[in-house]
Amino acid sequence: MSRIAIYPGSFDPVTNGHIDIAKRGLKLFDHIIVAILHNPGKKSLFTIEERLEMLNESMSGIDHIEFDTFDGLLVDYAHQRKACAILRGMRAVSDFEYEFQLALMNRKLKRQVETVFLMTGLRWIFTSSSIIKEAARFGGDVSDMVPPKVNSRLKTKFGF
Amino acid sequence: MSRIAIYPGSFDPVTNGHIDIAKRGLKLFDHIIVAILHNPGKKSLFTIEERLEMLNESMSGIDHIEFDTFDGLLVDYAHQRKACAILRGMRAVSDFEYEFQLALMNRKLKRQVETVFLMTGLRWIFTSSSIIKEAARFGGDVSDMVPPKVNSRLKTKFGF
Amino acid sequence: MSRIAIYPGSFDPVTNGHIDIAKRGLKLFDHIIVAILHNPGKKSLFTIEERLEMLNESMSGIDHIEFDTFDGLLVDYAHQRKACAILRGMRAVSDFEYEFQLALMNRKLKRQVETVFLMTGLRWIFTSSSIIKEAARFGGDVSDMVPPKVNSRLKTKFGF
Amino acid sequence: MSRIAIYPGSFDPVTNGHIDIAKRGLKLFDHIIVAILHNPGKKSLFTIEERLEMLNESMSGIDHIEFDTFDGLLVDYAHQRKACAILRGMRAVSDFEYEFQLALMNRKLKRQVETVFLMTGLRWIFTSSSIIKEAARFGGDVSDMVPPKVNSRLKTKFGF
Amino acid sequence: MSRIAIYPGSFDPVTNGHIDIAKRGLKLFDHIIVAILHNPGKKSLFTIEERLEMLNESMSGIDHIEFDTFDGLLVDYAHQRKACAILRGMRAVSDFEYEFQLALMNRKLKRQVETVFLMTGLRWIFTSSSIIKEAARFGGDVSDMVPPKVNSRLKTKFGF
Amino acid sequence: MSRIAIYPGSFDPVTNGHIDIAKRGLKLFDHIIVAILHNPGKKSLFTIEERLEMLNESMSGIDHIEFDTFDGLLVDYAHQRKACAILRGMRAVSDFEYEFQLALMNRKLKRQVETVFLMTGLRWIFTSSSIIKEAARFGGDVSDMVPPKVNSRLKTKFGF
Repeated sequence: MSRIAIYPGSFDPVTNGHIDIAKRGLKLFDHIIVAILHNPGKKSLFTIEERLEMLNESMSGIDHIEFDTFDGLLVDYAHQRKACAILRGMRAVSDFEYEFQLALMNRKLKRQVETVFLMTGLRWIFTSSSIIKEAARFGGDVSDMVPPKVNSRLKTKFGF
Repeated sequence: MSRIAIYPGSFDPVTNGHIDIAKRGLKLFDHIIVAILHNPGKKSLFTIEERLEMLNESMSGIDHIEFDTFDGLLVDYAHQRKACAILRGMRAVSDFEYEFQLALMNRKLKRQVETVFLMTGLRWIFTSSSIIKEAARFGGDVSDMVPPKVNSRLKTKFGF
Repeated sequence: MSRIAIYPGSFDPVTNGHIDIAKRGLKLFDHIIVAILHNPGKKSLFTIEERLEMLNESMSGIDHIEFDTFDGLLVDYAHQRKACAILRGMRAVSDFEYEFQLALMNRKLKRQVETVFLMTGLRWIFTSSSIIKEAARFGGDVSDMVPPKVNSRLKTKFGF
Repeated sequence: MSRIAIYPGSFDPVTNGHIDIAKRGLKLFDHIIVAILHNPGKKSLFTIEERLEMLNESMSGIDHIEFDTFDGLLVDYAHQRKACAILRGMRAVSDFEYEFQLALMNRKLKRQVETVFLMTGLRWIFTSSSIIKEAARFGGDVSDMVPPKVNSRLKTKFGF
Repeated sequence: MSRIAIYPGSFDPVTNGHIDIAKRGLKLFDHIIVAILHNPGKKSLFTIEERLEMLNESMSGIDHIEFDTFDGLLVDYAHQRKACAILRGMRAVSDFEYEFQLALMNRKLKRQVETVFLMTGLRWIFTSSSIIKEAARFGGDVSDMVPPKVNSRLKTKFGF
Repeated sequence: MSRIAIYPGSFDPVTNGHIDIAKRGLKLFDHIIVAILHNPGKKSLFTIEERLEMLNESMSGIDHIEFDTFDGLLVDYAHQRKACAILRGMRAVSDFEYEFQLALMNRKLKRQVETVFLMTGLRWIFTSSSIIKEAARFGGDVSDMVPPKVNSRLKTKFGF
């Protein structure tokens, strides 16, 4: 039996930390679906199409990874994609509590889907999408925190 | 390729929370080795033999689980057992930080072994071995937090 | 002397967790006033009238509980209602810090009103109003986290 | 019906922070029993008799407070003393998690006893018994953190 | 060599806690620049000019302190002002994580600028600008948490 | 005026993380005294003489750093050495709370000595002395977490 995991997120934009988690997830699962949550109620820097393109540009060479978008309940999407697990990276205590509540809620909604956590690698511990956007907005050099094409797009967005 | 995970701990004694994590781990891995760390420097209530017996008594009917003891470095043991992952349960923020440091250290020592975390089920969130021993020591009823045979052994130990 | 406590909140909507705290508060106080903070600056799903109706529908049979709304400073309201205490439930570390600051501020503003905390029951530890709304918005089944009439109203709101 | 609360602890020694919690507890309860846990397995600076004397010396003038010692399960003791609540002070996030686990365990063991938390007053937020002993051991002036007689006893103990 | 530190913030408005940190910073540095971050994307109660005036009114008599505003990257501003350090106050665990990420990011962007933390004094531990605004909005007395002129301005803003 | 800081600790043994903090402290202070707390009540792996030797071996080439031992109150020692500050590194939330209490206590005992915190560099975030000893005890390779001579001594101690 092939084990599939969903790696959900906003990926606005994808960072080197996300790519690290996805790759390490491949040691544990046969197939990873990196899935962008389409949340019309939340403002984003990049459109969902741009985010999907950046995922493709950044990880296209890796086997057993695919990219997708979804809306609705994550556990419903996981079920429909025949995934046995939701993959999440964790960086900090404040992540922990939110992730804990979410994992409990998701388990309540659909008991057979497990949420699996990997610790974010040390090098990526501070590379959240939002702090990267904050730095890039003012011309900070984030070239070693995101893939090259994401770096270019950030510079274009912010006019550098 | 068969995926093996080590689920390490003191298991002094094994609790329903441990059993829950081990079972849920089986959805993610093909084989789980529940491994008691033999740490002569740390005082325990039960001997390592008793702890191994309790693991056997509690989970003997479950396929793809075996029980073992080890000393030395966990990552060396994992490597020797051809495990791709270390499985850990998490309950609380204070667990999180210690587990984070440990996972980083283990990754530093042996890069190919991943540490994978599951959130402890809600019902077991307060059933640490130590708080159970504390309650049992004074005659508190812990029968729905540990397997029946562990409950009997705790009563015997504490003279109830 | 009769001891009165205010149980303040947004109750947008009331959850089973809130009801649990209110009921347990009755073991400690003679009278509980469940009081909806009217905060025009904060967006809510339900109007203040709907929220008051849901409180009434959910706890109408319980003695020594009344429902009210207030604006302005909580400690002024507590003083005016002759309450000796503010009752709060706590679920998580992140709650703790915010609640701590708030309790210190309230004590500073009105020294004679104590803030009293109960730990949220294990079953309700993940049933925050906001996570419930998030799940219900996408059709997730939250029927065992809120009273039946709240469940119906959530379904109507979100078109299920 | 008279409402009784147990305020349990080691009180090794009692601090101004403890006295503050006990006094504020009297606004909420009709009677407070300050109860020293007799735990032979844990090393203490003062004997249980000395600790009881210090409680008496520090709060003897206050109505509706009594002092006691107990061993065994706290919830059994609370039940036997007809208490409806266990009173606890909280100072910090690390307190929170331990207290949470303990409160859940106690509720599991005896459902009718509530654990009630008050936030430690700002002035006493760093006056734990252990940090006070640490300072007093080296001659640090702790006279505004403990009652005068406790201060004298600490000086005598440490030879100042 | 003269050591300069930047003390950055929103100062919307400046509180007694901010003034305490700035003054204590003067024991460590030869010159402190209290610098308001001009962030057009974030809503504020006071304009940047009003905030600068309040800083001047509150600390004008203190030597070796100056007041400024900046936009763009903090580390670029620090570099341009020849500062060796960024000074920050910390109050709580939730501050800690955010500050940690920020300090790591800033160190990444400009290695020679250190971020230095002081613990907020006990008396000011709950005087965040936002909780003060929340209290002042409803007529709460915050006169001992902010300088007198800030207090007057808050009253005027909120119509008391 | 020359600014002196005490960098206190157990240094059992000194790690690369400690050396990083000491060096970065030199950007902020004119002179750093790395001071080993002599605490006879606490078990250590290395004697205080060995620990002092390792400090000397690891940082002997650096200007403006000296090494010392002390017993008694840290603030008394700081005062006697004419230090204006105590320097501390922080790694994690659990550090934070303990450090906060300690800083408050020290400020209470001797108001003129400030405690100054630096965030531990990312690379050293998991290199606590205790986790390093734990790994080295079982033959784990810690050569990039401690200076070479400390590494040799650890191997000798544990028989590798």
